[in-house]
Amino acid sequence: MAWTIDDLDTPAVLVDLDRVEANLGRAQAYADQHGLRLRPHIKTHKIPELAHRQVALGAVGITCQKLGEAEVMADHGLDDILLTYNLLGPAKLARLIALARRVRLTVTLDNQVVARGLDAAMRAAGLRLPVLIECDTGGERCGVQRPEEALAMARLVDGLPGLHFAGLMTYPAKGGTEATAAWLGEAKALLAAAGLEPTIVSTGGTPDLYRAHRVGAATEHRPGTYIYSDRFQASVGVGTLDDCALRVLTTVVSRPNEDRLVLDAGSKTLSGDTLGLEGYGHVVEYPQLAIAKLSEEHGHVSAAGSNAKPGIGERVTVIPNHACVVSNLHDVVYAVRGERVERVLPVAARGKVT
Amino acid sequence: MAWTIDDLDTPAVLVDLDRVEANLGRAQAYADQHGLRLRPHIKTHKIPELAHRQVALGAVGITCQKLGEAEVMADHGLDDILLTYNLLGPAKLARLIALARRVRLTVTLDNQVVARGLDAAMRAAGLRLPVLIECDTGGERCGVQRPEEALAMARLVDGLPGLHFAGLMTYPAKGGTEATAAWLGEAKALLAAAGLEPTIVSTGGTPDLYRAHRVGAATEHRPGTYIYSDRFQASVGVGTLDDCALRVLTTVVSRPNEDRLVLDAGSKTLSGDTLGLEGYGHVVEYPQLAIAKLSEEHGHVSAAGSNAKPGIGERVTVIPNHACVVSNLHDVVYAVRGERVERVLPVAARGKVT
Repeated sequence: MAWTIDDLDTPAVLVDLDRVEANLGRAQAYADQHGLRLRPHIKTHKIPELAHRQVALGAVGITCQKLGEAEVMADHGLDDILLTYNLLGPAKLARLIALARRVRLTVTLDNQVVARGLDAAMRAAGLRLPVLIECDTGGERCGVQRPEEALAMARLVDGLPGLHFAGLMTYPAKGGTEATAAWLGEAKALLAAAGLEPTIVSTGGTPDLYRAHRVGAATEHRPGTYIYSDRFQASVGVGTLDDCALRVLTTVVSRPNEDRLVLDAGSKTLSGDTLGLEGYGHVVEYPQLAIAKLSEEHGHVSAAGSNAKPGIGERVTVIPNHACVVSNLHDVVYAVRGERVERVLPVAARGKVT
Repeated sequence: MAWTIDDLDTPAVLVDLDRVEANLGRAQAYADQHGLRLRPHIKTHKIPELAHRQVALGAVGITCQKLGEAEVMADHGLDDILLTYNLLGPAKLARLIALARRVRLTVTLDNQVVARGLDAAMRAAGLRLPVLIECDTGGERCGVQRPEEALAMARLVDGLPGLHFAGLMTYPAKGGTEATAAWLGEAKALLAAAGLEPTIVSTGGTPDLYRAHRVGAATEHRPGTYIYSDRFQASVGVGTLDDCALRVLTTVVSRPNEDRLVLDAGSKTLSGDTLGLEGYGHVVEYPQLAIAKLSEEHGHVSAAGSNAKPGIGERVTVIPNHACVVSNLHDVVYAVRGERVERVLPVAARGKVT
């Protein structure tokens, strides 16, 4: 018997596999055209099966943010992992050694404390770990602040026998492609002059995905959200709302008055992330409805601007603002093609906070 | 060997059992003093062991928001459950019947569609389900809009053989105790005049907990967050920051420059909820630090206003803005007393979205 989305209880996270394929294919074609490698960030989906699909389509490996995510991916056969996180402390270093023994592993760092900790652990284990220096090219997250600091950190890493300097990594500032290009170009030149030419220069982010080739030094890009896309990506012009593969199926559970209705999806389903957008998602079937407020298990919708209003019990589909945090709230997503439910995908790396 | 907080990897959610006891005891004493019953909302902790503790201290039962939460609690022996959600659709109704056969169950509703669906299901199962009418007394969530509508809905429920009208339920508007008291008082009088005196009048919310007795009609209150408290509750005067039992242990992983440092707890650990507060949490050991921005796995801290600044590798403790959504992000919390870790508590009802 065919299983359709009508058979699902709500709320349910749907992932449309045809849209996933299109999103992945478009990005891989772009990367191939520009001679860039793709190393997708699995934080968006946290699902080994989708990571394998990314690799099958041409990705050189994957990126993880948490050691626990990387362990889950390794358990499922992903064997080339970049871990873009400053790792500290004996518990994580012991796990890192175990992981480095079973996959091709690269890590990032932006400071001496992390470098010396990694070095000591790797030397004790008889391993040598490839390292990228994280660079703050304007995003104001982690990262060394200036190209000269990147050089100094590369020299430090190069001198530590447990580590191997492999290149640079950045998460670019929003829209700061030119600044990123200049920063990384200068760092690359400094490194080359010092005999430390970077093998890998890794940039990131879906908003910057289709301009990644304009960062001349870049050898690889780490998009995450592109696999699903979301309302935020559509708002900054990376695809359209129709490209959004992750959607939340919800039911109207209350219509307190003519101007308000309530969905069975609140901040514990959609997350409270706005990413600067108005409201908490786009209602596909009734685009004039506004998800104005979320309580934990209810989405409060203003219907004042909409002539058409769904009734109690009617189901509607919501494209969330930020797909990555929605995945992270759910134990499973439903893989669909159109109306057909193909299978249930456990979000296997969800909840791996360490 | 004693297991202490120092042995935990970060980020980790700590729940201080002494603070939990104090918070629960204070609320129960207040309720006892005023002849109010407590029916704690378990959405905050989602942990059966803590629900049992609430009942042992005097709560008449528990409140759940999701059917799946109620099922987990029933599986763990909680036997008196109020489910404050409009339930729709055959999947949920079948599960509701099974649940009604094994615990003392009450539900809420605010519309005819839900009433008729519940009635049909209960009649088919040969059951009669107690129902509270949800009232919107100013909170602008779900609920009938006026006392007259509460009466009409009570009459409808009273006439349906699968249902039994048991009373009223509301989640009061912030600070609207007087409005709530007036609304419910009027509804109660209308109901009494119609021979439908409510047995239960249930109010909710931790912000309103210690003024619940001022709602004359109220027979029970459903506080949720009070067990842990959080930065928001302290900001509205329900206890102090020191009463906050749920805290997130984090490590400083980067200090990009003099004015910024980065914690290993981002929106996937602390949630992006601000609840109108500035920033994303209170750093206990360095109260002048400001958690200014969150990315998914990093907390970006402004240290500009602080003379004391933790170094890379140092651990700090964060009191989050909103404890309920933090619980919901984590598979386990660590039950501690002071520095000692007593046990690991699975957040058993986490992820029960339906």
